[in-house]
Amino acid sequence: MAHLLSTSCTINVSSGCKPYYIPLNQGSRAFPTSFTLQASKSPFGRLVSFGEKPQRNFTVHSTTLPISKEAPAQPSSGAHETFNEPSKPQRVMVIGGDGYCGWATALHLSNKGYEVAIVDSLVRRLFDHQLGIESLTPIASIHNRLRCWKSLTGKTIELHIGDICDFEFLSEAFKSFEPDAVVHFGEQRSAPYSMIDRSRAVFTQNNNVIGTLNVLFAIKEFREQCHLVKLGTMGEYGTPNIDIEEGYITITHNGRTDTLPYPKQASSFYHLSKVHDSNNIAFTCKAWGIRATDLNQGVVYGVKTDETEMHEELCNRLDYDGVFGTALNRFCVQAAVGHPLTVYGKGGQTRGYLDIRDTVQCVELAIANPARSGEFRVFNQFTEQFSVNELAALVKNAGEKLGLNVESISVPNPRVEAEEHYYNAKHTKLVELGLEPHLLSDSLLDSLLNFAIEFKDRVDTKQIMPSVSWRKMGVKPRTITA
Amino acid sequence: MAHLLSTSCTINVSSGCKPYYIPLNQGSRAFPTSFTLQASKSPFGRLVSFGEKPQRNFTVHSTTLPISKEAPAQPSSGAHETFNEPSKPQRVMVIGGDGYCGWATALHLSNKGYEVAIVDSLVRRLFDHQLGIESLTPIASIHNRLRCWKSLTGKTIELHIGDICDFEFLSEAFKSFEPDAVVHFGEQRSAPYSMIDRSRAVFTQNNNVIGTLNVLFAIKEFREQCHLVKLGTMGEYGTPNIDIEEGYITITHNGRTDTLPYPKQASSFYHLSKVHDSNNIAFTCKAWGIRATDLNQGVVYGVKTDETEMHEELCNRLDYDGVFGTALNRFCVQAAVGHPLTVYGKGGQTRGYLDIRDTVQCVELAIANPARSGEFRVFNQFTEQFSVNELAALVKNAGEKLGLNVESISVPNPRVEAEEHYYNAKHTKLVELGLEPHLLSDSLLDSLLNFAIEFKDRVDTKQIMPSVSWRKMGVKPRTITA
Repeated sequence: MAHLLSTSCTINVSSGCKPYYIPLNQGSRAFPTSFTLQASKSPFGRLVSFGEKPQRNFTVHSTTLPISKEAPAQPSSGAHETFNEPSKPQRVMVIGGDGYCGWATALHLSNKGYEVAIVDSLVRRLFDHQLGIESLTPIASIHNRLRCWKSLTGKTIELHIGDICDFEFLSEAFKSFEPDAVVHFGEQRSAPYSMIDRSRAVFTQNNNVIGTLNVLFAIKEFREQCHLVKLGTMGEYGTPNIDIEEGYITITHNGRTDTLPYPKQASSFYHLSKVHDSNNIAFTCKAWGIRATDLNQGVVYGVKTDETEMHEELCNRLDYDGVFGTALNRFCVQAAVGHPLTVYGKGGQTRGYLDIRDTVQCVELAIANPARSGEFRVFNQFTEQFSVNELAALVKNAGEKLGLNVESISVPNPRVEAEEHYYNAKHTKLVELGLEPHLLSDSLLDSLLNFAIEFKDRVDTKQIMPSVSWRKMGVKPRTITA
Repeated sequence: MAHLLSTSCTINVSSGCKPYYIPLNQGSRAFPTSFTLQASKSPFGRLVSFGEKPQRNFTVHSTTLPISKEAPAQPSSGAHETFNEPSKPQRVMVIGGDGYCGWATALHLSNKGYEVAIVDSLVRRLFDHQLGIESLTPIASIHNRLRCWKSLTGKTIELHIGDICDFEFLSEAFKSFEPDAVVHFGEQRSAPYSMIDRSRAVFTQNNNVIGTLNVLFAIKEFREQCHLVKLGTMGEYGTPNIDIEEGYITITHNGRTDTLPYPKQASSFYHLSKVHDSNNIAFTCKAWGIRATDLNQGVVYGVKTDETEMHEELCNRLDYDGVFGTALNRFCVQAAVGHPLTVYGKGGQTRGYLDIRDTVQCVELAIANPARSGEFRVFNQFTEQFSVNELAALVKNAGEKLGLNVESISVPNPRVEAEEHYYNAKHTKLVELGLEPHLLSDSLLDSLLNFAIEFKDRVDTKQIMPSVSWRKMGVKPRTITA
């Protein structure tokens, strides 16, 4: 219990509650600091010990920091004043709010005056332990992160720790928090992770697809007007030889015309899980009138946002390893430690990219401008396209200005993907809602490189090279990591 | 154990084997009657009792009926002589071989000289018990079915009882049987079942998607040349306002052209599970060189095939209930018992249909003409299109010739679907391979109606009306059935 007590909750144990989940502060909107603690059925569930004997069934009542509920400030305005109506969404549940994009988003929304609850199983932290990898940046526990945020801003972010694949847990979180919008980052989000072995592939698809199904059922059952803002990926589209549209394409065929879902060609079990999600969500919009926005996000880079810069305990994670690290972030860390930039294959792979400051801005825009009831809306969430070779050249130039000697090497491509291809993806809908992009600039690259240099002593260079092969993956569980 | 012993296997119990699965007759191609018995981790697993104490870990060695392996006859020829090469597939695993399409297919392939193994968890029979429904026809146990087939034809069909979501079980079945082709019917196949409640929706997607993933991994790991023949559904396409092609569509957009997966618009969690499967399979064809054929099957009608007619113990199941029954079969049973034909809504819903005798023919054609390594081939497997109103009119006419008074009623549509729409789906690829369709004829309707009349005393009329609503489904488990 030491860890739980460190959050300075008042904990009263009572008996006789239902197994597996801990309803906490039900209907507790007067106590904005409620924590739902979760003893999950999942292998990642938290088993809390009282004294000698581990227990699975318990209730925790927490009313720490009982600061009276403040009237939230008006969310930042932009191109969406017309939506400032009485029904303006105020309560946002951020599933996966302890992760890279989720943490930045939760803080941003809280700062903008939304009431925020984070729902997270913290399994992303477990992946680090299991794979023997670590964020470049030291990150505080979610409990300390939230206490720090509270002490700096006076703003409370609720925390519900549990697995959304456990519907009893998710139901309680929904009924307790009553969200107007749910931002769903709570998925296994690494393509290489999903290609490690059979059990990780199965975990990824089960976790992501069933988790999202549960969110859809929770909305239908408990908050039918709640707007689902779901993180998809540009990788759902693959690399077709025609322009990529935003979710739908109008096709004329044999003299007839229809507007249909844009064809998907995902290229990992992770990317496929997002395609499955999109299809499931689209169906529930039609069948149940769910309102949903699918944010097909590009590759995110950067680490700092206005909120995470406020204190070192709010610092976001930055992954540079071959499993969870993404292209530009990895290159900056590689440059900082003098490792050649690892270009996979020919390096002509072109994708959409965006700054994490734009991730949080896009999510806010989607929330502030909800989809209509029954609408399945798809936005392509990126700001610029780059090939891997272009990124490597940018990092090389920026690094050399800082006195770094930056080389590139071509490593055998561990993925199955075209290395030279046409790529032109539309991304205008978020701009129409008011997105003001932070385009990739010398100053951002400088900042990111200096950040990587600051933490370079934490880099484990064994984690830099790709270790997961799309073609060689097998059924044998990979139990040993570098 | 009474039930198991009734298969007249010789059972020797040994200790110390691995938990959860029972390898049996490994490398036993000299003993074609091997049974793999499965104690599964799934809720549907079989718990076998020895004496007083239930045990989960046991080994069964069975060498019943040790007739020497016969050289299989040449599979029936057709338009595919050019494929009669030394590598001609001979060993076919039929997953879901105890079900409606699977049973007919397993017998047909066995009759045509293929060596056949059925892999089935028998969970379809459990659904009947749980929902309080039953096949119109009395069906023998799978054990008695196979003994009957053996006694009539001298042909042995191996039986592996277990859940393909349990990869240890599936691995043993693969390593033991060494299939050249896998026909995968082993999925929860009812749209209404998937829409009963949240837990059935989750079961359907988990069971179907993970089961198929496991099959793909088993092929990659153990039989990389094995051809996957996967049952999809025409329902994956939905009802677009343009012609439906077979799997792919060539799109010209902004002056560029590509051939892409045909857009999918599935309309139940079941249909969506098949879309997810198709996407997963397509990826593994590209990444691993899997050879796969996706049979997007229409609505199957009829009950008799050449093989099931040979003995009453070989009789196939015929579902008439609102959950598992399909349109034409249900109408014939309704006509037989004097129940008005239940037309959902306006009755303009148009779909592709086929006779079960064509299901078995199509699967054989797909097996005899395998996909190339890395090819994801899609066939639309149906022979004719009908609207629900057209089917009702056909049954009314045929019934009245038999002296039945057949009425139709419009019942509120429990589904979410267009009731009047354009529908024109291509279905030429199987015809090009040699399919000779059994088109819906007066004689088939006569036969099916007479069959329904023969068994009409077994009809539970409470099961006829639809009981599952797409819009009203909820998270509360439906535990009480009519």
